This record gives sequence, C-alpha cells and structure tokens, in this order.
Amino acid sequence: MLEEIGNVPYEHLPYRPASRRVREHNPTGKVPILMAYDDDPTTTVPVPSFMLTESVAINTYLGDLYPSSALVPPPRTRARAQYDQLCCTILSELDAQGLWMHRKHGTEMGKHLGGVLPEAVAAAQQHYTRIVPTLLPSDLYLLGKQFTAADILLVHCWDWAEQIGWNDSVSDEWKEYIQRCHHRPAYQKVRALLQQDETSSRL
Amino acid sequence: MLEEIGNVPYEHLPYRPASRRVREHNPTGKVPILMAYDDDPTTTVPVPSFMLTESVAINTYLGDLYPSSALVPPPRTRARAQYDQLCCTILSELDAQGLWMHRKHGTEMGKHLGGVLPEAVAAAQQHYTRIVPTLLPSDLYLLGKQFTAADILLVHCWDWAEQIGWNDSVSDEWKEYIQRCHHRPAYQKVRALLQQDETSSRL
Repeated sequence: MLEEIGNVPYEHLPYRPASRRVREHNPTGKVPILMAYDDDPTTTVPVPSFMLTESVAINTYLGDLYPSSALVPPPRTRARAQYDQLCCTILSELDAQGLWMHRKHGTEMGKHLGGVLPEAVAAAQQHYTRIVPTLLPSDLYLLGKQFTAADILLVHCWDWAEQIGWNDSVSDEWKEYIQRCHHRPAYQKVRALLQQDETSSRL
Repeated sequence: MLEEIGNVPYEHLPYRPASRRVREHNPTGKVPILMAYDDDPTTTVPVPSFMLTESVAINTYLGDLYPSSALVPPPRTRARAQYDQLCCTILSELDAQGLWMHRKHGTEMGKHLGGVLPEAVAAAQQHYTRIVPTLLPSDLYLLGKQFTAADILLVHCWDWAEQIGWNDSVSDEWKEYIQRCHHRPAYQKVRALLQQDETSSRL
C-alpha cells in the first residue's frame, strides 16, 4: 500500500506472524501492524503515536491520509461503501473462511491451532472456489478502471491460494486480471523485499 | 442500525439467509442487504437506486449518511481507523473463523456446506473464547463513552454465541457491557421484530 502511494518514508520490519514481537502489539498474532510516528525533535527514542492492526483498516486509513493516490474511494460516497463491502467479502469469505482454515487445519501450524482436519480444509477450498468467480471484475480492476486497495487485498489472498494450489480451476479472465496487478511496479518491489526477508536471519 | 439512528423510514423484509430471494442479490446468500430508494415520483414500481451487502459496510455507510447519530466515527480520523480495525477483527475472528465454523460444521445446515465436523467446531469455539477477552471495553462501550456500530456488530456475534452456548466462561465485566447494549431501546425494538419474524409465515 505504501509503495502504491509512493514517496512515503517507511521502514519494513519483517517480524513473523504469531512471534513474540507481534503478539506484544496484536493479541491475534497477525501482521501487518502499522506504527505511525509523529515528527518530534525532543524525543531521542521514537515512540509510535498511533498503532493500527488489520490490513483492511490500515489500507483504508492510508488511502484517506493520501487521497491523491486514489487508492481508496473518498469517504461518504457510494463508491466508498462498495469498496468497504468488497473488502468485507474478501476478508470474511476468502481470507477467514477460506485460507485461514487451511493454515489452521491443513498445515503443521495447525497442530496448536486446532489440529489437522482434511475435511475442514476441503470445505474451505470449496468455499473459496465458489466465491472467487463471483468477484471477477467486469473492468480493469475490482472497482472499475482505477486500481484500489481492494485489489491489493484480493491479490494477497490470490497469492496465498496459489501457494497451496487452490487456483487451478480459474478462468483466463481471472489470470489476466491477476497478471495486470502483478505487473505493477509496487507489487514487484514488495515481492523482491519479501523474498529478501525469507533469506534473512533477522526474523 | 436504522433504529439507533432513528427517524429513518425503512421496511424490514424478513428473508432468510441462503433463500432464493437473498441469493438473487448476494451470491454468498448472506443477510443483511440494504436497498436504498431515491424519491422518484415518476416511477410506480420502485427500483432500488443502490444496493449494499455486508453488515459492516452497511452500518458504516449509514453512519456516514447520518453523521449526527455519531454511530460511526468521522472519516479521516484515527478514531475511524480504530473503528475499522475493530470491525475487521470482529468480522474475521469472531464471526467468520468462530461462529460461521459452527454454522458450517456444527449444524444440520453443515450437511451441504462441508459436513458436520466436531473437531473444527471445537477449534472455532476455542478461537472465539481466546479472542473475546482481548476485546473487553475499558470504557462504557468498545470505542469509549460513545455507543457505535462496532457495538452493534459485537452484540450480534454475542447473541449468536449465546444461542450455541459459547459465552459460558466470560467475565462479569463482559456481562455488564452486554446488558448495557441489550437495554438500549433500539435493541429491544429489533429483538421484538425478529421474534415476530420467527412466528410469521412470510419467510
């Protein structure tokens, strides 16, 4: 989101979900967490003046803070309501009821999150596969000709689903849309950054 | 939400989730759906000028449309970002990863949604039970002294959890907060309305 906005100074701290450092700030153990710092020349050790969890809330906040980016439709419009609706559907249906069920019940991590349950994972994959086609954009991006933070959210889910083999049956139209998003310079830059994290020992 | 705002003319159509009428407008089959009508004296059969699904998006839209209700913090504020964050957590952790897993895998409805899976339901209940205490308000309501749409969302989840016996281990502070919300006239009115639905043959 910050790369799409551009020209916002930020530091990316590659802490892993469920790690001690993340749990200090978010009891769910989930990332991302945004920590905003006000410019205060009197402090030597900077303390964040504002902290936010939940990627949807973070992206919406940043979109409103930098409105010229046009990444989030303006507040108090029907376009904004449609953006909120779409983010809720992606969050609830694809991410929480789909992909998180795989993480909980389909992976080794599942051992302490509820146990490996192949039938629950199969139901979640079926749910993901049923919802995805209903979201196919009729234009360049999910909300029209303009790329928005809803596309960032969708592509995040897509990439996760790709890793676990859930996107095999999708249409060519979907693949074209995903490629369009993947080709964006901000996405390319962040992908390289995350690959660097994986090979770093800092985590 | 509309009762909390007050003085907004509306009609409540008690269609059931997953019914044909609901699926016509929302492929997930979920309610509520908001249908907004513009005053147009030239039409004899009113057609909605705007439709919205997802309760979080609907409540946020209505809160912005009627800002004097103060049910949703104003856009472009940190309070709004915290409201968005809280709605995402309730939606994702309590509703989607908690209660919906019960509906899918713990009920007869589960038969066509993925099958009855007691272990998946137990993991979901454990998740719900772990997250709820982290949301305990430190003030009268979730976001402070002011009742907001985030409280509406939380109470909806709470009432659902109550029906399936998931709230047994909560603290007295939680019960006080829930009672405070349950005593609100808007809640009382809507509860009576929903009880009427259950005994009606219109569904």
